[in-house]
Amino acid sequence: MDLLKQRIVENGRVLPGNILKVDSFINHMIDPQLFMEIGKEFATYFSGQPIDKVLTLEVSGIGVAVMTGYILQVPVLFAKKTVSKTLSVDCYETDVFSYTKNTTYKVRVDAKFLEAGERVLIVDDFLANGQAMFGLIDICNQAKCEVAGVGIVIEKGFQPGGKQLRENGYDVHSLAVIDRFDDGKVVFR
Amino acid sequence: MDLLKQRIVENGRVLPGNILKVDSFINHMIDPQLFMEIGKEFATYFSGQPIDKVLTLEVSGIGVAVMTGYILQVPVLFAKKTVSKTLSVDCYETDVFSYTKNTTYKVRVDAKFLEAGERVLIVDDFLANGQAMFGLIDICNQAKCEVAGVGIVIEKGFQPGGKQLRENGYDVHSLAVIDRFDDGKVVFR
Repeated sequence: MDLLKQRIVENGRVLPGNILKVDSFINHMIDPQLFMEIGKEFATYFSGQPIDKVLTLEVSGIGVAVMTGYILQVPVLFAKKTVSKTLSVDCYETDVFSYTKNTTYKVRVDAKFLEAGERVLIVDDFLANGQAMFGLIDICNQAKCEVAGVGIVIEKGFQPGGKQLRENGYDVHSLAVIDRFDDGKVVFR
Repeated sequence: MDLLKQRIVENGRVLPGNILKVDSFINHMIDPQLFMEIGKEFATYFSGQPIDKVLTLEVSGIGVAVMTGYILQVPVLFAKKTVSKTLSVDCYETDVFSYTKNTTYKVRVDAKFLEAGERVLIVDDFLANGQAMFGLIDICNQAKCEVAGVGIVIEKGFQPGGKQLRENGYDVHSLAVIDRFDDGKVVFR
């Protein structure tokens, strides 16, 4: 997606440790016009099949998921990282290991919001090691839902998540795949 | 906003302790078509003045904020509750007391995303005691921004937040104000 790659080049910043900061338009400040275009792109790519629901996890997947669900005209569900007193006890739960924080956290979805047989499109802003995506896939499996595909805004192609998801048969559509960082500059695949 | 009130009546559930669960269309599963209508309603109500940015706080304000920013064609900024390693050290920070969790947490906004003189529309899904809203107003004050108004999806009219905000001169536009719960049913003001 050229519009996105252009914004990454113009407004992204590469920090030491292969960290790409896109906080000025994706995960702290959000450009809603760009997010609408991202939603349209996901909806178009996955349009050849029925989709019943868009699934993401809090926090930074929500904006993109809402736009995608708006275009597809289906509900958006976000998995929660914290237990709130309003979350039902009857929920699907899975462990997600975070390499960034070197810790395992749980994500949960209220069981009544995923029905057996539903076709679920999973979306998120970043894909690196794929732990969060495999967590959401596990939740879909527990609910006996089918994963229609995985839509990713930015994939770090030099980390194994995308490869592993594709090897497992999932249709992963990443709008910008970063091959490597070269002297502080982003090189797309 | 009739469409919203109708959904609250049809899909909301009142739990003991005056808890209104709207997790099937607002804060766990999201109806993106409804959120777009909410965004249009906020944009229309606050259209008589320039707005440079929409501000909310994670998590459940994000969807509504993104739609509002989309219609207003301005960036959306969400305050963060957790310190991430990608958050700048130069940020505005404020304490928010949560009555629900009986604890104080910090919310932060990267200082570079709020410029002095900008007019900021604050939006959130719920208004009860108003602590989160006063926190975001404090952040706007630190940044020398002007609060253009406060857009709320559901206001619990029997809690003091809305009254205090209005008494302090803020233009609060709540799309559904709950007067009370009567035998498990929502009574709107």
